[in-house]
Amino acid sequence: MRAYELRPRPEFESLTLVERPSPPVGPSDVRVRVRAVSLNYRDLTIARNAVKRSAPVIPISDGAGEVLEVGKAVSRWRVGDRVIASFFPTWISGSLSDFHHANALGGGRDGMLAEEVVLPETAWVRPPDGLSFEEGATLPCAGLTAWNALFESASLKPGETVLVQGTGGVSVFALQLAKAAGARAIVTSSSEQKRRRAQELGADHVIDYRAEPHWGKAAKAWTGDRGVDLVVEVGGPGTFDQSTAALRYGGTMSILGVLTGTSGPVNTYAIFHHALRIAGVYVGSVEMLERFVRALAATKIRPIIDRVFGFEEVPAAYRHLASGAHFGKVVVRL
Amino acid sequence: MRAYELRPRPEFESLTLVERPSPPVGPSDVRVRVRAVSLNYRDLTIARNAVKRSAPVIPISDGAGEVLEVGKAVSRWRVGDRVIASFFPTWISGSLSDFHHANALGGGRDGMLAEEVVLPETAWVRPPDGLSFEEGATLPCAGLTAWNALFESASLKPGETVLVQGTGGVSVFALQLAKAAGARAIVTSSSEQKRRRAQELGADHVIDYRAEPHWGKAAKAWTGDRGVDLVVEVGGPGTFDQSTAALRYGGTMSILGVLTGTSGPVNTYAIFHHALRIAGVYVGSVEMLERFVRALAATKIRPIIDRVFGFEEVPAAYRHLASGAHFGKVVVRL
Amino acid sequence: MRAYELRPRPEFESLTLVERPSPPVGPSDVRVRVRAVSLNYRDLTIARNAVKRSAPVIPISDGAGEVLEVGKAVSRWRVGDRVIASFFPTWISGSLSDFHHANALGGGRDGMLAEEVVLPETAWVRPPDGLSFEEGATLPCAGLTAWNALFESASLKPGETVLVQGTGGVSVFALQLAKAAGARAIVTSSSEQKRRRAQELGADHVIDYRAEPHWGKAAKAWTGDRGVDLVVEVGGPGTFDQSTAALRYGGTMSILGVLTGTSGPVNTYAIFHHALRIAGVYVGSVEMLERFVRALAATKIRPIIDRVFGFEEVPAAYRHLASGAHFGKVVVRL
Amino acid sequence: MRAYELRPRPEFESLTLVERPSPPVGPSDVRVRVRAVSLNYRDLTIARNAVKRSAPVIPISDGAGEVLEVGKAVSRWRVGDRVIASFFPTWISGSLSDFHHANALGGGRDGMLAEEVVLPETAWVRPPDGLSFEEGATLPCAGLTAWNALFESASLKPGETVLVQGTGGVSVFALQLAKAAGARAIVTSSSEQKRRRAQELGADHVIDYRAEPHWGKAAKAWTGDRGVDLVVEVGGPGTFDQSTAALRYGGTMSILGVLTGTSGPVNTYAIFHHALRIAGVYVGSVEMLERFVRALAATKIRPIIDRVFGFEEVPAAYRHLASGAHFGKVVVRL
Repeated sequence: MRAYELRPRPEFESLTLVERPSPPVGPSDVRVRVRAVSLNYRDLTIARNAVKRSAPVIPISDGAGEVLEVGKAVSRWRVGDRVIASFFPTWISGSLSDFHHANALGGGRDGMLAEEVVLPETAWVRPPDGLSFEEGATLPCAGLTAWNALFESASLKPGETVLVQGTGGVSVFALQLAKAAGARAIVTSSSEQKRRRAQELGADHVIDYRAEPHWGKAAKAWTGDRGVDLVVEVGGPGTFDQSTAALRYGGTMSILGVLTGTSGPVNTYAIFHHALRIAGVYVGSVEMLERFVRALAATKIRPIIDRVFGFEEVPAAYRHLASGAHFGKVVVRL
Repeated sequence: MRAYELRPRPEFESLTLVERPSPPVGPSDVRVRVRAVSLNYRDLTIARNAVKRSAPVIPISDGAGEVLEVGKAVSRWRVGDRVIASFFPTWISGSLSDFHHANALGGGRDGMLAEEVVLPETAWVRPPDGLSFEEGATLPCAGLTAWNALFESASLKPGETVLVQGTGGVSVFALQLAKAAGARAIVTSSSEQKRRRAQELGADHVIDYRAEPHWGKAAKAWTGDRGVDLVVEVGGPGTFDQSTAALRYGGTMSILGVLTGTSGPVNTYAIFHHALRIAGVYVGSVEMLERFVRALAATKIRPIIDRVFGFEEVPAAYRHLASGAHFGKVVVRL
Repeated sequence: MRAYELRPRPEFESLTLVERPSPPVGPSDVRVRVRAVSLNYRDLTIARNAVKRSAPVIPISDGAGEVLEVGKAVSRWRVGDRVIASFFPTWISGSLSDFHHANALGGGRDGMLAEEVVLPETAWVRPPDGLSFEEGATLPCAGLTAWNALFESASLKPGETVLVQGTGGVSVFALQLAKAAGARAIVTSSSEQKRRRAQELGADHVIDYRAEPHWGKAAKAWTGDRGVDLVVEVGGPGTFDQSTAALRYGGTMSILGVLTGTSGPVNTYAIFHHALRIAGVYVGSVEMLERFVRALAATKIRPIIDRVFGFEEVPAAYRHLASGAHFGKVVVRL
Repeated sequence: MRAYELRPRPEFESLTLVERPSPPVGPSDVRVRVRAVSLNYRDLTIARNAVKRSAPVIPISDGAGEVLEVGKAVSRWRVGDRVIASFFPTWISGSLSDFHHANALGGGRDGMLAEEVVLPETAWVRPPDGLSFEEGATLPCAGLTAWNALFESASLKPGETVLVQGTGGVSVFALQLAKAAGARAIVTSSSEQKRRRAQELGADHVIDYRAEPHWGKAAKAWTGDRGVDLVVEVGGPGTFDQSTAALRYGGTMSILGVLTGTSGPVNTYAIFHHALRIAGVYVGSVEMLERFVRALAATKIRPIIDRVFGFEEVPAAYRHLASGAHFGKVVVRL
């Protein structure tokens, strides 16, 4: 089978198309023909850090495909079934752990950027009916992260207001889910075109964070100075203080991103002055993915795909995501 | 002012139109010109039990109107504001109590079926913009009960399935809220016409409980035998066992009604065999009402009004509700 | 190896001592030499219903022992380790299911009343240091049920009051856990001697339910009419109404028992009049058992053992439990 | 009456003993003869910032005393009752707000460092029986903050491990509450004597953070590398990263202090890598204070008082607290 491997070369030159034997199928395993994968910010970081790797790894966590072969003990899948892979193949339910982290796809172990992938039957989930492979491939990381941020780590209710930062994969899913759940959504973006698209997707209010550096206060003002109920924090330290400024007393920040770095100055007093809740969100478990899929099926949400690249164009796909020009998800078709 | 009082006469003859002085306004009070009230099942019971009362009481908990006069210390209302009254005027937040119960409108103290009503400023809530007085008058009891059953005592999420019994006031609100929140809804009704109207309001599945006495099992089967996530139990003992049969492992029953009585045989083993959660729901607090109003504003839900009666037709309105022919709320315009 | 099987004979004559081959050990399995088992009310019911069984089954869910042999892929256990088995060997975390129910020990599949038992490595848990095999054998069903009733399905806090019905296995564990957690405990019992023993274990108040048929009201009165925060409901329909009468507004009933039957007349109005919460508790998962073990280790609680029987005395042990004369757990040493 | 006022002078010279008329008692008010107050870190900050104040204010939030006079409409208090004041006199239940903040005792409005204090009847709470005025005066801020950090904003269970930073008022209460609730406690302190006293109060493990700058990792190691369940974060930015390093996957940080500042560099990636929960804790409401009092009564916890000063020694009491030499609470007797 053909696959990409990360080799110790600078930037996205690390992406190397290779021929590999397809892995064997154990009694509880399922072999899948991958039809589409989607890229996440994390994939950029991993590719850029490939220089430090001791051994090659197949990148990318998110993929969709169809079942080619099932092990003898497999009961829940049949050849031809459409499936998506869980970002954490070993995290079924309960608490996250070092073990699950070490087995994340495209990081600790080989990922989805290969024609064939073998994983235990419990690592696969049925995507919502009617979604294409390209759409299904957007769900495991960006989609599930947004779901977890709104409905597992937090508990968004109709009539509440969510603030979403920018228009990357997680943020657009968060916007769609918030609207489908009867909530209001505020989207920040420095691009007029992206703000317009956010409004077309239902955003109740948009803020240009370049023109409005105190966008946290501006968001709060828009709620009649009550404050927003939930912020989906994808920026990290560089946006944290504006997020706490936006929140109401007792409001929740679901934090999940590093777009402005992993460490930096933060006002910790603001957290307890307003009795805020902060929830760390790292993708999610297989059971969360199943609940997310049920929500997509009930709400008829369709993932927003920015652009689809061919299998030979993978480095171009990475560069496109790195440019920040996208709105929604960047996908590769296999 | 004119008002109805309950006098010790049989059935709805207890409803007596009288002339009364309007109550005085204390420093923290607000006087309201009532423009519409809505009827609840509880109002029927209270009117029927009027024979046992030692003193007359003005009935009905739910009403909307506009502010006529404010006390000296009042800061949140101005003359002309549109308001609705909280079912429990003294229950602002925290836990329900004997004291709050004793002060429920139209029960422990005078209610809304009067041209003018005086209550503390904290007992009034602003209805969603754009709703008529008739629509606003449906919110405090039936509407808030449905909201509490889905989003305060339970935590309904997109993609989950709610089972709603019948098409009375609470049930229709629960159906509307479930759909606006991205959930699926099953409605039971023995009337083909009502089932059709429920489907027009978004019900994903309907069950004729006369034709299908094991409707709990039928509901579970419709979910692919997984079971529903939430039942809004308005029947009481007569429907309880079907409700537990419908629920998934770990599912929730929000119980709030007595349509089949207050006591009766119940299978308590079913509660723990499926690790169910049961939440008793008794209308809600002022803060819950405010959250409910925000949800209505965000989702653009309009209350379903079955029929509007004139102030002189109050006994006819009671009889109409008692007939069970209604779909949604029965309202009186003042 | 020697084991007891349930054969289709009346009452406890169904318990039959047999010689059986020890089951094989698969790659992820662990073979354990059972040293002690404890009996639960459920074991009585299963033995009495053995007449209806199509095939023999080894009874009893609760046992402790030491590891004799581990499969090739086993990483967490070594020969000689002390272990207890989870009541539901397949329920690791997340939600209970039909599948887990069908695999409960001593019910859907062979249980612990055998010299050797083989289960997957994930089904075994390390008991607290310093506990004997007899003490360890009391934890998986009665102990974990009490833990779940207080701290998983409910969230008991210091200063709250728990009402415990009687002095069977679950109730005595609940009493010990409540006291170790800084709560107050009320115990009901018709035996003066048992009430005295409950007080020695820390019960703050005891009620003779024979002398005080309205013991729910009596319990509430003892709290200064505020009501208890949590009831551990082991009786079922026959005690349900007294339990709701004992609870405060917003209080919780953890329901888990059938001592008075599986169905019967219940006042469902009381549930919502006081905005009660009812939580169905069916033993618990492996992860809950691990948390329970940590709690025992931190609090130095020692299980209360009523009496220890020899392996040949198993029918006598069953009869002793059935007599209701016990206080705490009935154990068999192998 | 005699009282201290903060006047615009440097440092603790701002504390000025004055003669003032006792405030009038409205219909719902209660006049109390203050018998003891306790100092908190916040009181130091307010005294130091007195220079910026436009008008004098009576400092200190925490006090205990006995009822001298009740207003006409007061129903819950009688002359002679022993009471403590709530830090936020207007925050009864529900959510914190700007309004409640603006009415905090000794900050937005006059506090407790006066012979007589008048507050609405709902602002007073009955302390546990058997506590002296000095002990009662330690509860409203430090005690309630610790309670909130463990049992309102978090939900500490028996067998869990709490990490407590230092031996100030909040930390010592948190240690006592954790032990009384069946949890384990780790205490950090650079003083050998304070570490020994912490152990005498039940600390299961102590860490010298000077000798062990990576005390977060050390704490995690002590738990067998599982991580602690809860950190009571009193330091702020300077301790934050060690606190996240100490926590288990899904663990909780209750953050409430500014001992190392209000802003500073923080690793926000650590929050979501381990799916942590952070809860901002700002003292608590009247209802929380009532629950805390019930917990103290049930557990027989006695507040740890470091030293008691006389009314004329108030500036010395402030200086003693500022020195950091204390273990537990600094109290002034009136």
